[in-house]
Amino acid sequence: MLPQWVIEKKRDGHPLTPEEIRSFIDGFTRGSIPDYQMAALAMAIYFSGMKPDEVAVLTDAMMRSGDLVDTSSIRIPKTDKHSTGGIGDKVSLILAPLVACCGVAVPMISGRGLGITGGTLDKLEAIPGYRTNLSEKEFLAVVRKCGCSIVGQTSRLAPADKKLYALRDVTATVPSIPLITGSIMCKKLAEGIDALVLDVKCGSGAFMKSRKDARALAQSMVRVGRAMKKKVAALITDMNQPLGRAAGNAVEVVESVDTLNGRGPQDLTDLTIALGVEMLALCGKAKDRKAADKHLRRLLATGEAYARFKEMVRLQGGNPHALDDPKRLPTARIVAPYRAKTSGYVAGVDADSIGRAVLVLGAGRTRTEDKVDHAVGVTGLKKIGESVRKGEALLMIHANDKGRLKEAEKLLAKAFAISAKKQRAPKLVLEAIR
Amino acid sequence: MLPQWVIEKKRDGHPLTPEEIRSFIDGFTRGSIPDYQMAALAMAIYFSGMKPDEVAVLTDAMMRSGDLVDTSSIRIPKTDKHSTGGIGDKVSLILAPLVACCGVAVPMISGRGLGITGGTLDKLEAIPGYRTNLSEKEFLAVVRKCGCSIVGQTSRLAPADKKLYALRDVTATVPSIPLITGSIMCKKLAEGIDALVLDVKCGSGAFMKSRKDARALAQSMVRVGRAMKKKVAALITDMNQPLGRAAGNAVEVVESVDTLNGRGPQDLTDLTIALGVEMLALCGKAKDRKAADKHLRRLLATGEAYARFKEMVRLQGGNPHALDDPKRLPTARIVAPYRAKTSGYVAGVDADSIGRAVLVLGAGRTRTEDKVDHAVGVTGLKKIGESVRKGEALLMIHANDKGRLKEAEKLLAKAFAISAKKQRAPKLVLEAIR
Repeated sequence: MLPQWVIEKKRDGHPLTPEEIRSFIDGFTRGSIPDYQMAALAMAIYFSGMKPDEVAVLTDAMMRSGDLVDTSSIRIPKTDKHSTGGIGDKVSLILAPLVACCGVAVPMISGRGLGITGGTLDKLEAIPGYRTNLSEKEFLAVVRKCGCSIVGQTSRLAPADKKLYALRDVTATVPSIPLITGSIMCKKLAEGIDALVLDVKCGSGAFMKSRKDARALAQSMVRVGRAMKKKVAALITDMNQPLGRAAGNAVEVVESVDTLNGRGPQDLTDLTIALGVEMLALCGKAKDRKAADKHLRRLLATGEAYARFKEMVRLQGGNPHALDDPKRLPTARIVAPYRAKTSGYVAGVDADSIGRAVLVLGAGRTRTEDKVDHAVGVTGLKKIGESVRKGEALLMIHANDKGRLKEAEKLLAKAFAISAKKQRAPKLVLEAIR
Repeated sequence: MLPQWVIEKKRDGHPLTPEEIRSFIDGFTRGSIPDYQMAALAMAIYFSGMKPDEVAVLTDAMMRSGDLVDTSSIRIPKTDKHSTGGIGDKVSLILAPLVACCGVAVPMISGRGLGITGGTLDKLEAIPGYRTNLSEKEFLAVVRKCGCSIVGQTSRLAPADKKLYALRDVTATVPSIPLITGSIMCKKLAEGIDALVLDVKCGSGAFMKSRKDARALAQSMVRVGRAMKKKVAALITDMNQPLGRAAGNAVEVVESVDTLNGRGPQDLTDLTIALGVEMLALCGKAKDRKAADKHLRRLLATGEAYARFKEMVRLQGGNPHALDDPKRLPTARIVAPYRAKTSGYVAGVDADSIGRAVLVLGAGRTRTEDKVDHAVGVTGLKKIGESVRKGEALLMIHANDKGRLKEAEKLLAKAFAISAKKQRAPKLVLEAIR
């Protein structure tokens, strides 16, 4: 079987056999199939699609291209959450310790930010001393001790995906549902989990702009997870405005701490709880969703979830006291209000513009090798439906450089829509796929 | 402009600007755009197509990636023919000297065979001493002296096409009309000709199986040629059976010599004449097509065209006496009849099977680096419509190896369809695009 025959078959819209998919991915990983043949296959998949069976084999082949985490020493249900990424999304920091309080384990392998999307690891690294590069042994020890751990992926986790993702990025083959599904699921399922909840964002600030596309991706991932004998559910959630009121790194840690103490923004709290209920339900730890919701909220209110978070931070080398005192986290030299030019109700907050402003301030990366400024970002963001007076701050800009502050302000000029009419806050959880 | 933006634009079905096409082809030729981005763009073009304007720019960019032949020293109309390739197609050997007798010049740069399609250069190299690797200076001198020359392409002719064709071959992006058009036309137009006639083959033995595809390719090439200010016409011709009665290398030279002397098979003679009439018409040398047809046939009958061919062969280092005496050309050790198993009328001759048999005998290449056996092939092939008695030879096999003879016989078992009913010879020229 020549690689070009496999490309031709997919180009002509035929399903590939498991052997064809496995030997292609295997050859690509080992280097016997060159990048140009993988690029041509990726583009053929972009146009011709893949059947659910093919996507499952693709995912499995990419997962098996590297090491699998051996979680057999952990005797309770193992679960994780994946989000397709959005502005201000710090849910993982709150959700992992929260559900770990309910008798499930969360061995979470997370990513770094690129472009306007922040990364969980970058946020955690704003905490002095926090190590994201644990060995597998250390990682599992932290999970056994406190029920959760959030680390970065090693080069041995799904190397096929690492290589393919880099190639897709420069060949215009990123937005393909089979390829996105494979990329996300191969890494999550390599964690050795039993259950996975997917947060598929939908809207102007999300990768999937339309409800239809978001649903197609969610269904594809749920199908593949089930084909691989995992319990999987997905929530399609709104990303037409940032999540919570803070976007950046240290500022998102502060907001996470607030939320872990029951004082967080409503949308962030509600989404975290909704995802937590799904996780517990999949793990058989929530016979009654209403009771689970109540229980999770109590764990925030009592500080129990926060204590678990501090324990995880301590076990990973971070300074837990820095969490109690935000001044001990990186802080920006300039904190300036960005003011409303008119009075009214917030009718729209363009998540994309906020994300670009935060990127320009230095909180994110435009290239993988860029360094992140942990101190900068935005806070106190007004949300859709809230009223605002002319001259009042729509958000606070945290900057370390006046030039970047000006640039961010330019980007923010298009971010807010203010209306004279009362506005309703948008629905957060649009749809569940269970 | 990043290359991936260009790929994305084409992927999404948008036309590319001339600057985008030129800088992509230029970057690819120089190596600053890697093969994987070119492969992704080729697959995007396969699916999204290109508008005629885009194909013209692509062709021009590929043509200008290398040297252009400077034919300004030749003061008569310069013309050439290109065929999309078929089994037994030795038209170039006859056509070039034939039309050169009519006051036009034919500076023909030709190719080698690959797969079941034979190459004009391989056939000519069956003539002892014939050199296909002339310098540009030598090439133009031969054209000036005898009106025609048939040579191979140098590495400096359209290097972008050479690189792209090799890549398309291994990425399943060969059958794309814009890419085929660009590949054919960039090389032909680099020859510095005024007029080009295209022979687009259609049928089981051709690259384009359907009339619709053949017409689309022909129209695309004619459009591009005209956009580049050349006179272009195309004939769509039948390739459901081989052309003439011989396929191989030396055996095709012998058949060409016969045809140049007015004793050739009817289909081969008729097609050569039809293409010649088009060439003369484009060059303003045939006001009346009927008269031109008659004139060309007379040039065959009188031996004038043959004399011109011998002169070209001599000027390119070949031994013209070998043409007068076929025994001086390479001959095979075994010449065996392949006999009809039943009596009746030939209803079908599968060109593809004949091509494979000839390939197996050693007359062609499966890889570019393979050596060709000039002696082997088939002759005396019965054509559709002809009657045959049980035990009579359907063709003669010329082989140098008993094992290969057996393999060829196996392939030939499916090649002929014999019917009890009388059969009509198929129409040869299906359609003209002028």
